[in-house]
Amino acid sequence: VVLAVRRAGICNTDLEIARGYMGFQGVLGHELVAQVVEGPAGSAPPADWAGRRVTPEINCACRGCPACTQGRGNHCPTRTVLGILGRDGGLAERVAVPLSTLHAVPDSLDDDQAVFIEPLAAALHAFDDVDLTRKDRVLLLGDGKLGLLIGLALAARRGQLGQALAVGRHPDKLAILAAAGLEVALETDFDERGSFDLVIEATGSPQGLTTALEAVRPQGTLVLKSTYAGAADVDLAPVVINEVRVVGSRCGDFPRAIAALENGHIDPRPLISERFSLNEAERAFARAAEPGVIKVLVDATGTEP
Amino acid sequence: VVLAVRRAGICNTDLEIARGYMGFQGVLGHELVAQVVEGPAGSAPPADWAGRRVTPEINCACRGCPACTQGRGNHCPTRTVLGILGRDGGLAERVAVPLSTLHAVPDSLDDDQAVFIEPLAAALHAFDDVDLTRKDRVLLLGDGKLGLLIGLALAARRGQLGQALAVGRHPDKLAILAAAGLEVALETDFDERGSFDLVIEATGSPQGLTTALEAVRPQGTLVLKSTYAGAADVDLAPVVINEVRVVGSRCGDFPRAIAALENGHIDPRPLISERFSLNEAERAFARAAEPGVIKVLVDATGTEP
Repeated sequence: VVLAVRRAGICNTDLEIARGYMGFQGVLGHELVAQVVEGPAGSAPPADWAGRRVTPEINCACRGCPACTQGRGNHCPTRTVLGILGRDGGLAERVAVPLSTLHAVPDSLDDDQAVFIEPLAAALHAFDDVDLTRKDRVLLLGDGKLGLLIGLALAARRGQLGQALAVGRHPDKLAILAAAGLEVALETDFDERGSFDLVIEATGSPQGLTTALEAVRPQGTLVLKSTYAGAADVDLAPVVINEVRVVGSRCGDFPRAIAALENGHIDPRPLISERFSLNEAERAFARAAEPGVIKVLVDATGTEP
Repeated sequence: VVLAVRRAGICNTDLEIARGYMGFQGVLGHELVAQVVEGPAGSAPPADWAGRRVTPEINCACRGCPACTQGRGNHCPTRTVLGILGRDGGLAERVAVPLSTLHAVPDSLDDDQAVFIEPLAAALHAFDDVDLTRKDRVLLLGDGKLGLLIGLALAARRGQLGQALAVGRHPDKLAILAAAGLEVALETDFDERGSFDLVIEATGSPQGLTTALEAVRPQGTLVLKSTYAGAADVDLAPVVINEVRVVGSRCGDFPRAIAALENGHIDPRPLISERFSLNEAERAFARAAEPGVIKVLVDATGTEP
């Protein structure tokens, strides 16, 4: 189906791809809310989707290989990924996606909320494959675009934890998490060692991994949300000596993100720093890369050629 | 209690410590079988232990801190570790250890078997925190001292797995694993990617980690048994992109290792390369570091001063 894009967000993966990560050439953009306007080859869209507001999954799987049939479609070896791998993304007036990737956006969510469905799904996924108990102490490292969303997700379950601390570099960004109910600390003031049951690493830098390995308790869990372009010079001996469980975490479940937005448990709109029109996309990218800027949105309505 | 050492093994950790790892100064040796001969300050040993053949746990925990009371004594922050950290080890005529660390060696096990209890416990621990099913494909990387023991442990559960493959550098060492029932392959012939449910990395080199990350399937498990002295220059982006679960694994459960030796499921004696007397300990270390040599044993009986 062909979608008319309404709004798209810029994330750090987009910025890294623009610098050469993944070797992608094509249209960027994988956080979007859009409207179904066309079927294949100019045909009418399926009647139950026509005109609806949607957000597409970013992984487009073959649906036939062992990974797909075993429920790991996000890891299909021949997948394309919207705006990341072998498929044009949504920083455009229109974008073509498989019908199977669509999720309807409930009327109760505005476009500003809906554009966060994809990154919020990834943020919530940080807590999958992790058994948290009421006494557990959780540390979030990183107050960037993804780190702040994970922080809001962490704040939503604050009451079920022994401690929930976010450590970052920017007082103004940490203030958003403090307002949501997290304990916060500046990186320069933080030196706790070996005491956190769960550490979520979302700094986007190899130094964050070293800090995370120091902060996690023996036999604790470290969730990695950062991808680094290139090799990291990190001493991994503590993983073995302290028997740490390191879990890589990427994309998440869209319906759960939609539900968290709908029931009001998470409101990501305070993260919006600035808006641009699609014609200003290059300026939007430059702005999104500036320190202190959180989420930059690109509005594609009214820019049809 | 004071133990009269009968036999001790040399492992790669000993060799690394001799090169400066851990900054340990003292008597090496943490794989041993010994006899209880004395209590504290020259007193008689407890009657139920006097004269018994034993092997001691290597971690000597405080038994009072949160880690200890929560069942993680192996990770007690003030622990000493036999021959590794703050406590003289068993490459000696006699060694003093806490009574609480002793495990009785059954009469049915000879000294050659009993000296493997500690490293076999560590090898078996590679399969803890891992749920294996009948269809699972398991890859072991490394045919060194620990790798071969893990290989024997893997062979013992071969019938419960879809595939069990060991990849190494030495045809003669891999032959031991083939005889035990594993599929084997030389590293130079191996290039499978993204297909193993569980990969156990026991090569002792950073290159092994890179190979392991290539071989494990998305959302699969990678068990790290190697410690490297110093930082490793490894690209960790695949951990996140493929959502791999990396589990560090160190010491294991002694009673389970004793049971596996007793019931004959695992016989490590084919791994014994050579024997030295305690007076020849330096030669034993030089030999243990030579390529192709597996387990070097040091006999301490008959060397009382």
